[in-house]
Amino acid sequence: MGDNLARKILKEHLVEGELVPGSEIAIRIDQTLLQDATGTMAMLEFMATGLPRVKVGLAAQYVDHNLLQTDNKNADDHAFLASAAQKFGVNLSKPGNGVSHQVHLERFGVPGTTLLGADSHTPTAAGMGQLAIGAGGLDVALAMAGYPFHLTCPKIWGVKLTGRLQPWVSGKDVILEMLRRHTVKGGVGKIIEYYGPGVATLSATDRATIGNMGAELGATSTVFPSDENTRAFLEAQGRGGVWRELSADPDAGYDEYDEIDLSQVVPLIACPSSPDNVVPVSEIEGLKVDQVIVGSSVNSSFRDLMTVCRILEGRRIAPGLAFHINPGSRQVLENVVARGGFMMLLLAGGQVHQPGCLGCIGMGQAPGTNQVSLRTFPRNFPGRSGTKEDRVYLCSPETAAAAGVFGVVTDPRKLSELLPWPDVKNPDRYLVDDSGIQAAPDDGASVEIVTGPNIVPFPEFPALPDRLDVEVIIKVGDNISTDTIMPAGNKVLPFRSNIPAISKFVFEQADPEFAARAAEKGDGAVVGGENYGQGSSREHAALAPRFLGIRVKIAKSFARIHRSNLINFGIVPLVFKDPADYDRIKQGDRISIPRLRELVSSGATEIPIDVGGTGMTTLLHASERERRELVAGGLLNSVKEENHG
Amino acid sequence: MGDNLARKILKEHLVEGELVPGSEIAIRIDQTLLQDATGTMAMLEFMATGLPRVKVGLAAQYVDHNLLQTDNKNADDHAFLASAAQKFGVNLSKPGNGVSHQVHLERFGVPGTTLLGADSHTPTAAGMGQLAIGAGGLDVALAMAGYPFHLTCPKIWGVKLTGRLQPWVSGKDVILEMLRRHTVKGGVGKIIEYYGPGVATLSATDRATIGNMGAELGATSTVFPSDENTRAFLEAQGRGGVWRELSADPDAGYDEYDEIDLSQVVPLIACPSSPDNVVPVSEIEGLKVDQVIVGSSVNSSFRDLMTVCRILEGRRIAPGLAFHINPGSRQVLENVVARGGFMMLLLAGGQVHQPGCLGCIGMGQAPGTNQVSLRTFPRNFPGRSGTKEDRVYLCSPETAAAAGVFGVVTDPRKLSELLPWPDVKNPDRYLVDDSGIQAAPDDGASVEIVTGPNIVPFPEFPALPDRLDVEVIIKVGDNISTDTIMPAGNKVLPFRSNIPAISKFVFEQADPEFAARAAEKGDGAVVGGENYGQGSSREHAALAPRFLGIRVKIAKSFARIHRSNLINFGIVPLVFKDPADYDRIKQGDRISIPRLRELVSSGATEIPIDVGGTGMTTLLHASERERRELVAGGLLNSVKEENHG
Repeated sequence: MGDNLARKILKEHLVEGELVPGSEIAIRIDQTLLQDATGTMAMLEFMATGLPRVKVGLAAQYVDHNLLQTDNKNADDHAFLASAAQKFGVNLSKPGNGVSHQVHLERFGVPGTTLLGADSHTPTAAGMGQLAIGAGGLDVALAMAGYPFHLTCPKIWGVKLTGRLQPWVSGKDVILEMLRRHTVKGGVGKIIEYYGPGVATLSATDRATIGNMGAELGATSTVFPSDENTRAFLEAQGRGGVWRELSADPDAGYDEYDEIDLSQVVPLIACPSSPDNVVPVSEIEGLKVDQVIVGSSVNSSFRDLMTVCRILEGRRIAPGLAFHINPGSRQVLENVVARGGFMMLLLAGGQVHQPGCLGCIGMGQAPGTNQVSLRTFPRNFPGRSGTKEDRVYLCSPETAAAAGVFGVVTDPRKLSELLPWPDVKNPDRYLVDDSGIQAAPDDGASVEIVTGPNIVPFPEFPALPDRLDVEVIIKVGDNISTDTIMPAGNKVLPFRSNIPAISKFVFEQADPEFAARAAEKGDGAVVGGENYGQGSSREHAALAPRFLGIRVKIAKSFARIHRSNLINFGIVPLVFKDPADYDRIKQGDRISIPRLRELVSSGATEIPIDVGGTGMTTLLHASERERRELVAGGLLNSVKEENHG
Repeated sequence: MGDNLARKILKEHLVEGELVPGSEIAIRIDQTLLQDATGTMAMLEFMATGLPRVKVGLAAQYVDHNLLQTDNKNADDHAFLASAAQKFGVNLSKPGNGVSHQVHLERFGVPGTTLLGADSHTPTAAGMGQLAIGAGGLDVALAMAGYPFHLTCPKIWGVKLTGRLQPWVSGKDVILEMLRRHTVKGGVGKIIEYYGPGVATLSATDRATIGNMGAELGATSTVFPSDENTRAFLEAQGRGGVWRELSADPDAGYDEYDEIDLSQVVPLIACPSSPDNVVPVSEIEGLKVDQVIVGSSVNSSFRDLMTVCRILEGRRIAPGLAFHINPGSRQVLENVVARGGFMMLLLAGGQVHQPGCLGCIGMGQAPGTNQVSLRTFPRNFPGRSGTKEDRVYLCSPETAAAAGVFGVVTDPRKLSELLPWPDVKNPDRYLVDDSGIQAAPDDGASVEIVTGPNIVPFPEFPALPDRLDVEVIIKVGDNISTDTIMPAGNKVLPFRSNIPAISKFVFEQADPEFAARAAEKGDGAVVGGENYGQGSSREHAALAPRFLGIRVKIAKSFARIHRSNLINFGIVPLVFKDPADYDRIKQGDRISIPRLRELVSSGATEIPIDVGGTGMTTLLHASERERRELVAGGLLNSVKEENHG
């Protein structure tokens, strides 16, 4: 049996392990992507490695999330990122140049390479035949430092496409069909590979749309073949030279299978408040719409926007409806302007914003109370818009434009009563303007890093001591989420680049005194129940407690990603051998672990501890690599040791 | 001696009093203007009059300030304003349609009429030969209800213009020259009237710039003649029919005089952090600039923006500099797009935003720490940008563009080394698109008002009782400002349309228990020292205490505007006859005023009060009109009585 395409790319990049689903592997990373919400800390982490320059083939830093600038903090972060990019050899895409994923597709993506991005929608680059994976900031920082990326080898899920999309139906409807069938958990632990004769009917940007929202299926990544459409897109970008043909072997097999007949896909819409709450648009026709937004990391290509322009040309947005357009990139905007589309939007009554993420991440455009908002965005989780109990629907640009014209949810095929299907194609040759991208000088040694008052260097953490004598600073119950450990929200997020400041909010809702007590006590421990650290992948939920002196967490069990983050930041994750011991520890107890460093180094699974004179046994499940990191005091320390011999 | 133009317009509109500077007069109002930051409460106040429809000739409601929408509140306010505008016969300019002053100039202003606006930059309409005055929300609400506007008759200050501006110098430099000469207090109590042969050399939009920033001189208003330039602008807007010629009589005199030879005006710049901190641009040449913003309520006309486009055409913004453009209106943007200017800005690397106030009122675009920001805005008060200790400079579009090209402050006349002076004129015929303006139906009776959870009707206040028995809820010292009484800022401002919610913040910094105590005690009094209520004109500093039950304030003296606001909202402002009595009252004392209503009605100046058995004499200085308002329980009650009486 031949190889599928995902396996081929993985094989080409494999540096550790074997391609057996479920086992740990490491792959070489060719390109990295940071945005400004996750990137400030990731850049500080890269700086903490001590390297003078990135070692990855291509690194890009985008400023697309925090464009509002209501005080100095975001502007300070932008200035920091701009200077760090210059110093360390990173391409900077400036504020207003567009959403990372769209710009990366246009200007940087290369078929058959790997891209690691500190953003879950990184797999948009599937449109380019790239294997693109979203990851935590430290993972990307280390990839920038030249290290391979460790992951659990995914299953490859082959989805065969046949037929051809009907008029008024587009890529968004294909991925909504996938979500309708498979839910937001359908892709977990898998790479989705699209193949079959239908692939050739989809443009690079429609494929990007499908790749982007593979994240909503929970997939590790999405891949598409690199074919004539990929070449056409690259040549239109003046980058035909990087194209190479890529596809699965003719006799390739997959770990799982599905099939979509594109000709049978109808306009779909995800209802509030989950991307998999999908129904045909026709099922909810007539619902009054208050707001429409076209754009974001998905559906913001030239084809997407110009389709909307053509539909609105010579028409007026329905009364009482706000119609926003967020172009995906400066390039998209310029090409739409050059072909007259911008004026069509303005004259129809649309509000055109500068390119960026904006409303998709709740940075403006929040709908009013009880308002219905139709968005071409990838996500409609409750409250993500900024408005509590919001009513956000996800749909294609065609469906969005139809709502703009009619003022109510309308199957876009009804537009054929007003105009012929515009069938917009991406340009054969884009107007290419890289004025928004700042390349780094060959030597950045003389560049000075600009750090505003909110940017605090990554803290230095000591190595694991021979023995630990710590106090239990807090004892919590089962299913504690990272939201409980490290809250998000407007009050906390502006401090994302300031660990001392953000640490003050650790466990704030559960125990407002935690941070002060931890800081006072010196080294400390946290005791938890089952599934400790579930939920979001945010690394601050490990990093900030570590800053407060937490050296060990003892629980009945840990959630997977949080356990990795604990090890990354040098906190030892111990599991009770006898879960009943959980009941024998209380807040304030003293814990001694006499030979900790020796036991971690030597590969011991059993770690005996002493709790106020009572002996208990705990377990450490960790690979040899992870044990090295723990002994060093965290992944960054271990990297620094390697760098300096 | 003949009449000057300001006096002519005042005469035509005078309904009470005589045109003697310093005496109270009332004038008929022809047009009103609200924006969304002040307008939500003003609209609630209009609703509280009980009228089914506005009685003013033309009322316009703009949505230009609160465009960020990070939660439901602003969107809810917009929906409220849209529905109220429909119901009550108000023209609505929707979000994205532009800044009130620019749009009003384009679509509504009429020479020789009066405009009252709830925004200090309302005198922008001077560019149209209109007499336009900024006022508090309730004043505008009552003008909408058909009531005349009361004001202290201003002096008329004639400023003779001679000569003609040199290339690269524009209207902004003229008003900066006025500020350089006369400071931010130079215009207090005055209408500035420009006359003389130089007037004919200034376009309507340059005059608008000069009128706009008359507010920075503290002037009541600014007027310009209505001449051929005014006619040309109106005809370009398709509104030539409303034009009429207006000028001072040939032998007119003025209360004060000044003269500017336009040919001697050089490019000027206001340094941090006051609009009158003005120096020639050449004096600070070479200062590194981090951010430039073109636009806002001033300098956002076609001429202004297209001048910047021509300067940037084929060039690139200097590295490391952010260059923002905030078009003044959708119309300006469309006309710039139609003439190719938009693409010039994009290709140069500019960030073009939707039309609106944005950074001028700290809604985004805050500069980073220690960054130098050059703005064509009217104000650079400390921290107004959103960044503490900011470094904001005010300049012309020409000077802003020069900084964009060179990256440092540069006299724009140096641009002549790169290109000939573009000498951009406003179009002979604008592309006119009123899709952003929603006219009201002839009958709004069936329109339902949309009120989100944050919009709370204007509270009902009882009339003045025969006698008052109150407790002193707080006693404060001298020079208490309205900032102390009713704080502003991000925490408080979103509740501007919710008096019960905003009332919880009254005196928050001085005494966090004040609001709770006032609410618990029922009717109450506040005791203050000298100059009580100085500072901003915000009416919430009277309205919110009134909501908490404060019926009387007793002080050594009151600041002028706050005293008016107290009367507007039915709080009796009493002054100690013997200032030493101030020391004989303390917080918690009971005060009785036995015949209060009778004494206020009858015109008595002396009001005896009893403080815990001790008699004191207080004074009430108030006109007959003001006494009627106090007896009614506030201006709105008095209006309602008249309506139903």
